[in-house]
Order: sequence, then C-alpha cells, then structure tokens
Amino acid sequence: MFATETEFIRWLQRQAPGRAPGLRLGIGDDAALVEIRRGYELILTTDLSIEGVHFLRHLHPPRAVGHRALARSLSDVAAMGGTPRYALISLAISARTSRAWLQEFYAGVFALAQRFAVTVVGGDTAVVPGSMLIDVTVAGEVERGKAIRRSGARPGDQIFVSGRLGLSALGLRWIQTKASAARRGKGALGPAPARGKMRDPVRVHFYPEPRCALGRFLCEKNLASSLIDLSDGLSTDLTRLCEASNVGARIWAERIPVPDIPAGSKPGSLRAMDLALNGGEDYELLFSVPSRKAPQIAGKFNDVPLHCIGEICRSKEILLVLTNGKQAPLSPAGYDHFAKVSSTSRGQRAKSR
Amino acid sequence: MFATETEFIRWLQRQAPGRAPGLRLGIGDDAALVEIRRGYELILTTDLSIEGVHFLRHLHPPRAVGHRALARSLSDVAAMGGTPRYALISLAISARTSRAWLQEFYAGVFALAQRFAVTVVGGDTAVVPGSMLIDVTVAGEVERGKAIRRSGARPGDQIFVSGRLGLSALGLRWIQTKASAARRGKGALGPAPARGKMRDPVRVHFYPEPRCALGRFLCEKNLASSLIDLSDGLSTDLTRLCEASNVGARIWAERIPVPDIPAGSKPGSLRAMDLALNGGEDYELLFSVPSRKAPQIAGKFNDVPLHCIGEICRSKEILLVLTNGKQAPLSPAGYDHFAKVSSTSRGQRAKSR
Repeated sequence: MFATETEFIRWLQRQAPGRAPGLRLGIGDDAALVEIRRGYELILTTDLSIEGVHFLRHLHPPRAVGHRALARSLSDVAAMGGTPRYALISLAISARTSRAWLQEFYAGVFALAQRFAVTVVGGDTAVVPGSMLIDVTVAGEVERGKAIRRSGARPGDQIFVSGRLGLSALGLRWIQTKASAARRGKGALGPAPARGKMRDPVRVHFYPEPRCALGRFLCEKNLASSLIDLSDGLSTDLTRLCEASNVGARIWAERIPVPDIPAGSKPGSLRAMDLALNGGEDYELLFSVPSRKAPQIAGKFNDVPLHCIGEICRSKEILLVLTNGKQAPLSPAGYDHFAKVSSTSRGQRAKSR
Repeated sequence: MFATETEFIRWLQRQAPGRAPGLRLGIGDDAALVEIRRGYELILTTDLSIEGVHFLRHLHPPRAVGHRALARSLSDVAAMGGTPRYALISLAISARTSRAWLQEFYAGVFALAQRFAVTVVGGDTAVVPGSMLIDVTVAGEVERGKAIRRSGARPGDQIFVSGRLGLSALGLRWIQTKASAARRGKGALGPAPARGKMRDPVRVHFYPEPRCALGRFLCEKNLASSLIDLSDGLSTDLTRLCEASNVGARIWAERIPVPDIPAGSKPGSLRAMDLALNGGEDYELLFSVPSRKAPQIAGKFNDVPLHCIGEICRSKEILLVLTNGKQAPLSPAGYDHFAKVSSTSRGQRAKSR
C-alpha cells in the first residue's frame, strides 16, 4: 500500500502515459481540463465494477479487474458510435489491498487505455472498510448529431450482433468450476495463465474487447438505425433497445452465435443458448440496420464476425423463433441489479456480476 | 426499493429536470450526449462519498448525503474557476435501502443541481452487499486557457480564503455529541431539523455551499494566480497548493477565520484553531492573488467574507505565525485516505470522512 495519498497520486502520474492532443491538464489538480474538437459532441458514461458483484477477488486477477472496469465504459462509447478520449478512475480500496495488486490493476487499465488512445486524466481514491469498488467515467467524442441511439430502430430493420455471445459467461463458469475443484483438493487453481495461453472463453471473460472500431464504422457509414452494447445479455439488452425504439423484434434461434461447449466439459450441463441469450458481459454490439442498407454489412468487420439474427417488428412482442419453427416470447433474463427473484442461473451469475 | 432497474431508471428520468441548452441526450441510453461551447475547455472531476468514511447512515439525512456528494464535485469545478454543467451519479446501494431513502437522496442531488443549473445526464446503479457508495462525476466549462490551477502561486502573492473555516467539522462534532447522548438515554436524536432551523455549523456540515460564483469571479477578472478548494483542511490543501506551485507560505494565526465555539458548549474541549486548520469539508476556496491585484479583493464577495490570511514565500516552508509572534511549521494534518498513523483528532474525523 502507499503511505500517503500524495505518494499514490505521484506514482499514478508516473504511470499515466504522456500528453494527448486535447489534454490540457491531467491527474493532480482539482479537476482535469481537456478540449473537445469543434463540431463534436461530448459523450459521457460511467460504470461501476464492484467486488462480489462484478468481480471476485480470488478469481479475477487484478490486471483483468482493471481491464474489465475500463472496458465497460469504452463499450458504452462504442455503443454510441463515438471515440473514447479520456477516463477518470474512482477507486475505493480496502486497507488490506497490496501495492502489487494496485500496480497490476492500473497496468490493466493503462494497457487497455493506451490501445484505444484513451488518456486517464483523473479520478478519486478512498480506503473503505468493506468490499472494493471501481467507478470508471469515460468522456468521448462523436460528430455533432451523428451518435447512434437505442431509440432509432424501425419495423423491417435487420438485427445484427458482433462476435460470439455467451463466451464471457462460459469463461466465468470454467473459472468457478476450476476454483471449486481446487477448494476440494482436486487440482490447484494456481496463478492465472498468461493472456495468450488462456482458453478462449476465459480470455474473453477476463479481457473483453470493446468494439469501438465497429461502432465508428457504423456511425461513419451511417448504417445503423439503433445501437446498444451487450452488457447484461441479449435478452435484456434487445428488450431495452426495443422499448427505447417503441418496437418489437423476431429473433431466429439458429442464427444466434452461441458458444461452443466441448462435449463432456466440466460445465457440461450448461445450455449454449441460455448463455448466449442471458449470459451478459459480452460487450459485443447489437444494432439494427434498415433493410436496404443491410447488404452493406459484411460477414466480418476486421476479424469480428457479424451475424444477422432477426428483424424489427411493429408489434411490441419480442419473439424467439425456435429451430422447429415455433415461436416463444423472449423475456429479459439477463442481469438486473434490482431484481429480487432470481433463477438458478441468475443466482450463479450474480456471484460474479 | 424499486422492483427492477428499468423501473428505477424511469423514475429517475421523471425526477431529472427538463432540457438544458447543451444537452442532447440524458439518462437512459448507453451514454449521455452534451455539447461544449466553442472556445471553452471541458472540466472533468469525480468524487467518492462512502458510507462509514464520508457519511454515516444514522447521522446524515439522505437529502444531505445527496447534497454533499454533488457539492464535492461542484466545489472542484469552482476550484478551476469554471461553470459546472452536467453530472453523472453512480450509486452502489445495499438491498436494504428504502425507496424513501433513495427519493430523499435524489431530492438532495436535484435541488442542488437545479440551483447551479447543472443537469444530471447519467450514472450507474448497483446493489451491493456492503456499505453504500456514491461517485459523482461533474463536467464543466471554462474559457480556453483561463482555468485557474493549483500551480500558479508566486512569492509575494497574498493568500485568501472565503467563508469561515472549521464549521463543517464543528457541526459534525455537535451531531456526534447529540447522537451519543441519545444513545446513553440523555436525549432524543429525533429527525434532523428543517434546514432553516439548524444551527449554523450543522447546516454547513449537511449542506455545504460550493463557491462556484466566487471561482467564476476570480477567473473572469483574472485575479487569482492559483486556486484550490478546501476539502481536506487548510493545512493539507495549502500544502498541496504550495507543492504544486513549488513555493512556501506564511500564515498569520490571528487572521484565520476560526469558528465561534460558545463557552460551555458540549464539544467545549475543541480548539477552534485545530478545527479551522485541519477540520476539512469546508468547501471554501483558498487562492493566491498577486500583491498588485490584492486591493481588488473586497472584504466580501456577495455575502461570503474573504480573508487575507498570509502570503506566498520563496522558501518551501509553510509557517504559522502565532499571536505571540513566534513561528511554527504547519504540517498537513487534514484528512489523508492512505495515512495509517492517526492522531486522536484524525481518528474522530475518520468516523465521518
């Protein structure tokens, strides 16, 4: 731990990368000063990451905690079609937190920030009696009037998702299975493997990749009528998009990019479709595209697959078309911080969300 | 409590005042969209308010918790000479938190926001197992290149403070004394009195007034060479200002506006000077003014007294000139979140900071 707040802030100033174009004053004064380019609107978003809710101290390496905390907010900027520029990190840590933990946490934050050309310009830090909490605010930019909102979906629009859904939830279950086996003496949990050596779902869970480039592409080419990021699960976030747009949707089960679960793998009882629909923390993008523009959406953007999974409907229902052709209503069953009634799968998820 | 996150967000949208000039998109999408005026820089600041550290559930009315959480960030914008414009409220609440508590909390936030023409544009909310935590981010504006930093103080500059120092700490002690008497059966704590009927220090503690108008005045008239707000106590914040400016200071004890402590009052053992130097949470402004401009600082700004308490020196020492003419080094003894060695008075303060 650091002896004083001043020592901590000086250390942080040394870690923060150098000057960015619009940065006027970074960490260390009463507030940060930055400049927003002429003709641009400012995007503001903030996201909490809480020990025991969004991460577990014994399961999530501090580098991953830092990465994930920032990724949540970068993903929100991606979901507006904007470019993230500046971040503020508020950190409530327990007095037991080691200096090594803090260093790794900030290494995770700064590595991701640097890759997205985001400058950490400030924050606040306090020592708390209870669990740790991180709140990340990101300020971004988007050309005036060009941000893509949740509310623009129109009947007939095609619905797309990026990437493969449910991987993060699957990765979490693998980690939890391994940890409980280790507790029962059936294997060592050991330190987290290096990022390159992780199994795909574990890497996606620890180090989700915000889809900022895709969001910018959709914005610049004026392709999407609405856009949201998948933070709480497809079933929940599609419902939010439809409610904001005052429309419904029809989704084809067979088109949803569900995760591969190797037969006989430990969390074998998991249903791939449940993970894809309700798993959450995918940070992929969900967007609607007017049907005349849909041919402009290729099967991939950079290396990220794009899947057309359904269409927007006038009727307010959200329906899942099953492989046998039958339709079932799709209810929001992703994570809800206020919901008290929890299904078994939500109970599990709540352990790390 | 609210049944779902969606219900809570809808309620919040109804509470938030209508449209502000630069607001493009408020609560409810992935992020907020606002516009910053041409020729202005963006000020970004964020401040944590934590149950058990910055407030106590049984002592602080929820309306005061909301007011204080926002006031901390508004004060930071005041300390840059800027105008606060937008706020994001991140709130980690326990499942036991009542709807009435939340309503009163937001009433405190919105009442202060409205008085300062600040629009609440977003935030995040989560239910946590441990203590409550609030993180408020404020975005403000200041004319390009005109923000007043901590680092501009020069030898010979006069040092000013606004208001009366130590009132908030005194108010806290009165509340604590009353609460512990109530616990011992020597009186009822009862509900907090209406704002107008509170004793002055209690009102200042519950409802501190950010000095935004004074900050703007100093900025517009180009009077202050450096500026900081007094959040952690004069001794600590003056040290920060001097370190940032690479200077020292000499302060006259007799010029420091200490609080009035009526003889025989309960916390009678308190030393007024200790409260003024180290009490913290005053949210008054501390600023340096080049001596040729000092005559332009009147004894009052609006209704707020301004006191010249000392001068900036070339030597790096910070000295307190006592009433007997002797000098004593002034060490930072205000609140430090990382400091482990705590004096008795810091131990007391830590209970509510």
